[in-house]
Parts: sequence; C-alpha cells; structure tokens
Amino acid sequence: MPQRPPARIGQPLAEVDTPALLLDLDAFERNLRRLPSSLPPGAISLRPHAKSHKCPEIARRQLAIGAVGICCQKVSEAEAMIEGGIHDVLISNEIVGATKLARLAALGKKARVAVCVDDAANVDQLEAAAAVARVTLGVLVEINVGSDRCGVAPGEPAVALAKHVAACPHLRFCGLQAYHGPAQHLRPVAERHAAARRAAESARRTKALLEAGGLPCPTVTGGGTGTYACDTAAGIHTELQPGSYLFMDADYARNEWPAGAPRFEQSLFVWSTLMSRPAPDWGAVDAGLKAIATDSGLPLVPDHPGVEFSRAADEHGVLRFHDPACVLAVGDKLRLVPGHCDPTVNLHEWFVGIRRDRVEAVWPITARGAFF
Amino acid sequence: MPQRPPARIGQPLAEVDTPALLLDLDAFERNLRRLPSSLPPGAISLRPHAKSHKCPEIARRQLAIGAVGICCQKVSEAEAMIEGGIHDVLISNEIVGATKLARLAALGKKARVAVCVDDAANVDQLEAAAAVARVTLGVLVEINVGSDRCGVAPGEPAVALAKHVAACPHLRFCGLQAYHGPAQHLRPVAERHAAARRAAESARRTKALLEAGGLPCPTVTGGGTGTYACDTAAGIHTELQPGSYLFMDADYARNEWPAGAPRFEQSLFVWSTLMSRPAPDWGAVDAGLKAIATDSGLPLVPDHPGVEFSRAADEHGVLRFHDPACVLAVGDKLRLVPGHCDPTVNLHEWFVGIRRDRVEAVWPITARGAFF
Repeated sequence: MPQRPPARIGQPLAEVDTPALLLDLDAFERNLRRLPSSLPPGAISLRPHAKSHKCPEIARRQLAIGAVGICCQKVSEAEAMIEGGIHDVLISNEIVGATKLARLAALGKKARVAVCVDDAANVDQLEAAAAVARVTLGVLVEINVGSDRCGVAPGEPAVALAKHVAACPHLRFCGLQAYHGPAQHLRPVAERHAAARRAAESARRTKALLEAGGLPCPTVTGGGTGTYACDTAAGIHTELQPGSYLFMDADYARNEWPAGAPRFEQSLFVWSTLMSRPAPDWGAVDAGLKAIATDSGLPLVPDHPGVEFSRAADEHGVLRFHDPACVLAVGDKLRLVPGHCDPTVNLHEWFVGIRRDRVEAVWPITARGAFF
Repeated sequence: MPQRPPARIGQPLAEVDTPALLLDLDAFERNLRRLPSSLPPGAISLRPHAKSHKCPEIARRQLAIGAVGICCQKVSEAEAMIEGGIHDVLISNEIVGATKLARLAALGKKARVAVCVDDAANVDQLEAAAAVARVTLGVLVEINVGSDRCGVAPGEPAVALAKHVAACPHLRFCGLQAYHGPAQHLRPVAERHAAARRAAESARRTKALLEAGGLPCPTVTGGGTGTYACDTAAGIHTELQPGSYLFMDADYARNEWPAGAPRFEQSLFVWSTLMSRPAPDWGAVDAGLKAIATDSGLPLVPDHPGVEFSRAADEHGVLRFHDPACVLAVGDKLRLVPGHCDPTVNLHEWFVGIRRDRVEAVWPITARGAFF
C-alpha cells in the first residue's frame, strides 16, 4: 500500500496517527457473530458483501464462522479477494466489456465464480470469454425489484434471459439476484419491510415461472443490513448479502429497527485530531472529504455531547462547540462516526483494530480503489 | 500503486478501461499556461496547490513555467512531492502532533519547507521539533479572513503570534496566510470579489501592524481559482495558491466569471461505461461514489444532451435519458464531469492523459490518500 500504516501493533490508541480508520474489535466481533446467529438454522445462507470492507482478513473471518462465500461488486475486487484466499465469490453486479470479461473468466480457473446479468448481448460476450478461458461460470439473472438501477423486469423478461443463459455451454444458470438497495435505508420499519416483501414477491413469481418452464432456480440472492430479517422471513431468498452490519454508520443508525431485532453496534470510526480551535465555539479536525464520506450525511461526534461536525472541506472538518466549556484543545484526538461506511472505508488503506485502547491489529484494505 | 493503470500509452481512448480519470491534455496545458500568463509580470508569484493533483509529474510542469514552489495540505503530501523532485513546499495548513512535526522537521533537510500556524503551543512544539532536527523552518501565521476554519484573528492576535514565532531560534517568520476558501465558490462575481477584498483588507491591516512593530512581513499567501484575479488586483498578496484551474469541475462552472477574465476549460473527466440499460428512460454507468466525488453536486454528462446523472450508489451512477431516442447502449463509454475535482482525483491512482483520442501519458497519483 502506498501510505504507511498509521499505527503499530501494541501502541496505545492515543498515539495512533490521524486520520485513521479505527475498528473497535469487541463491537466488530459481536456484529460479525450476531448476524449469522440471528438466522433460523438451515433456513438461509450468508454471503456477506466485501464491498464494505475490501479486506481479505475480514472476509476470512466471515467464512470461518459459516459464510458460504462472499459478494464483490467489481472484477478487481474479486481478484483481490481470491488472491487473499477466498474461494467462492459472487460478483453481484453486471460486468461489461471484453477486458473485464476476460479477467472474470480467468478467475473461474482459480475459484468458484458467479456473476449477474441483465442483458442478452452481455450474456453472449460472457459465454465467449468463458469459452476462450475454458471455464464454466455461474450466472444469476438480476431482476429489478425496485432499485431502478440494473436488472431486467421480473417475470417473463427474466425467464427469457435465463433461458438464454441456460443455452450457453460455458455458463451455468444458478438463479436470481433480487436486491433492493434503496429499501435498506427506508427509515420506518413498516415501509422497509413492505418494500422487501414486494421484492420477495417479484422473486417468488419469477422463480415459479422459471420452474414451470422447466428451469430450476436453486439460488435467490439479495438482502442487505436493513432488510435481511424480513428477506429471511419471506422465505424466497436462499442467500443474504449484507455488508454494513459489521461496521454500521450514522445513516443506518437513523433507521427505525424492529423491537427484538438484533442490534448492530457502531464499530467503525475515523480517528481525528483537533488541529485548530481559534474560538470557544468552533474549531477544525484533520479529517475532511478525503478521510470520511459525506454522501449520506455529515459525521457524528459520539464521545463529546454538544460538539457538532458542521462542515467538511477537503482536509478539514469544522466543529461547532455548542457548549463553549468543552475542554477539547488543539492536539486532542476524537472519534468520528462516518455518515456512510462503505465509501469511507474506500478512502483508507488500513484498518486499525483497537481493543482496550491498544492497537491489536493493522489490516490492509487490499481492494481499496478496486473499481475496475 | 496497488491498482493497475487503466490504460497503456498509445492505446485508443475507446479501449481505456473504466472507470478511469481522463485528462484532456490540450485543455490541461492551456489551463496550465493561462493562469500564469494572465498575471501582471513581476506583480505576484504563483505557488499552485498540489492537493488538487497529488501528482509530481504535474507539479514539475507547474514549476517549469515559473511557479516558485507548490503548496501541500499534509506532511505526507509534502513527502511525496519532495520525493518526486519538488524543492520548495509550503504546507498551507496547521500541523499538529509530535509524530507529524518530527516528519515535517525532517523534510527541512531535503527541501525549502514552510508551514502555517495559528496556536502558540503549536509554535513551541514546532520549534522543539526543528531544534531536534537542526533545521530552520519557514512559518506563516494564518489569519482567519472569513473561512472560519483555522487561523487566528487578524490584527493584534496575529501580531502576538508572529512575535512568538520570531522569537524561536529554529523558525523563520515569513509572513501571513490569508486564504478564504468559501469565497472561491460564491457564485456572483460581486460577492466573490467583495469577500476577497475584505480578506485582502484584513491582511493589509495585519501586515501594517507587523511592520509598525518592527517585524517585516515579506510574504502574504492565499487566493484560489475563484478569487485569484481579485486577490492580485488588491495588491497585498505576494503569492497565489490556486489548484483547480488545471482541471475545473461542475461546481466551479456554476460560478459567474467576469467579462474578459481568463476562462479555464474542463480538462478532467471520469471515463465510464454504460453497464445496464433496462429501460428506454434509465440506465447505469460503472462510476459511483467510489469513482467520482458528489459532495459539491452530481456529475454532468457533457457529450450527451438530454442524459442526466441522477443518483450515485457506491459503484453505480444512475442515468436518466430524457430523450428516449438516445442511442447509448450497454458497453458504450462516456465522459462525466466531476462535481468537485480534488476529492475525485483522490479516489483514483492514475491520470490517463488523452490527446486526439489516444493515450499519451499515464501518471501515478502518488499522493493519493496522503492525509497524514
């Protein structure tokens, strides 16, 4: 990695350089176990999304406690994960263009690899790449269950595309991807679950049509941190793809959660230094747009009530001190909760794992920037 | 760099992998020359900001046509630039903490280095670090001219801090930093220029007080792409710090510009592939929050009227086709104009320089992620 690690194993947290991406290992490990242990035994498989962490060290921990494989969003992300020892990868996304398809097919020699499709011409190109590489690739037809992003319409259009896949000698039709991204962040439980139920209904109807046409549909994959419990209860998904449950963020914290549901803890923080306090009521930390993502809202300041992160510049976060008696001084370090975990992780090259205020682990974010 | 370059020199643009950060070399080179050639000869020096490009290849081109040095925002950015052959660096920011100050002082042995201060205790720590390293560091007192981010108040507080600096044997008081960040993006020329004039007036008053107190103030540094002409005309700045003029972005394009002022051209683009077009009126490109910054607004689609970038997910940009007859198909590539150039550059590891639709240069963004 081009940037040196901001910490050494054994170092006290107070000495960790800033900005750094901290992982509270106790909270992280509870999150890691809490999701799979909340699933009804045998009912559904877990294939967590590596786009959140981009770190083989973390993927290996997910597999060690029962995940069947991982999801990636890009070929280069899958390359980094397979290089890091992961042997079952679903690229939960469409892969377009000869260069990428050739690299995808090459991965089929090293690991069990599947990919999503939503376009017949793309299927033909995928078949051609798999034939050249002499591999068989798993293929899922992505249906649009409300994301309005990628995916064919559920029902007959999906069945037609699935038949097209099934007719390709180097492709193995595995089933459907039914993932509803925007539903994850609908605040009221009732709205979120209604969207998830509509998605499940689309998948159920399409699967029935496939099977009526003689095409088995062993896999229905989808579901994220916001909807996974409802997706599981609906009984049509065979695989869940959550990612953020490991870390959480300020945006997910704004979701309403059902009573009795497992609660994931904030385990991811950006460690920052107060670098200027020119006045009692404002100051600046050394973490701005290049250290913390703001697309889903500004960071929170969890350890200092009355301190608000009010504005982000490239390399500065402007803090408002609503209680001018706040004793934070230049040089003091403080934790920030990112608005959105995934793009925040993608700004950093290292996770700094903290336990009892000491550095216990420093893990490279190997697939940072892996957007090819 | 961990990610492979998305292009090879000589390759046709159409074959460049996506997402990639394209630099239109003709437009870039015109921008590169246009700013210095618009300055009255001998009136003011140019010290462009490397936080925009993070690339020694580009910094060297700025110096080759007359820049006196560069600005950096972080010690690690300065390390990358000095390693890349740049010998005069102003860190236009406060540097806090023993680790960073020791690294900063070490740079003083390799290059001419200056830094900003706004806090007396920080000055003492800087002096201590310089003494240990046996170097003399240049120091500018940053005054708050309206950014409300860092900087002491203009006038007496700045003079008191400057005297503190001047009393330190390993620090050389060089003058003032008077940079107004938010003013760069005020849309109406009149408002932007009024803010710049107020900033200049604060600097003028503080400089006069310093000189009346027997403290020479040879340097007043500041000014960005939005205000540099007005800063120059005000006659108090000795140095300009613009960065975005090389690239421009959708946010700067929304500024009103004075008649007759030099116009900078959009030279920076994110090259993307249409990866899905499930319906006549929408589709998705393979560049989302991890390939293009959205903090200052969504990207523009310059080459396809009637196509709107309507929503960004982690790895997807959702396009709306307001003209359903738009012929863009899955696999077609298109350019996006970033909303904000600096944090977009920071997501990428390579500039792909294009001239007449061929790759002419591939430059590493060496200081990407250099936020320490």
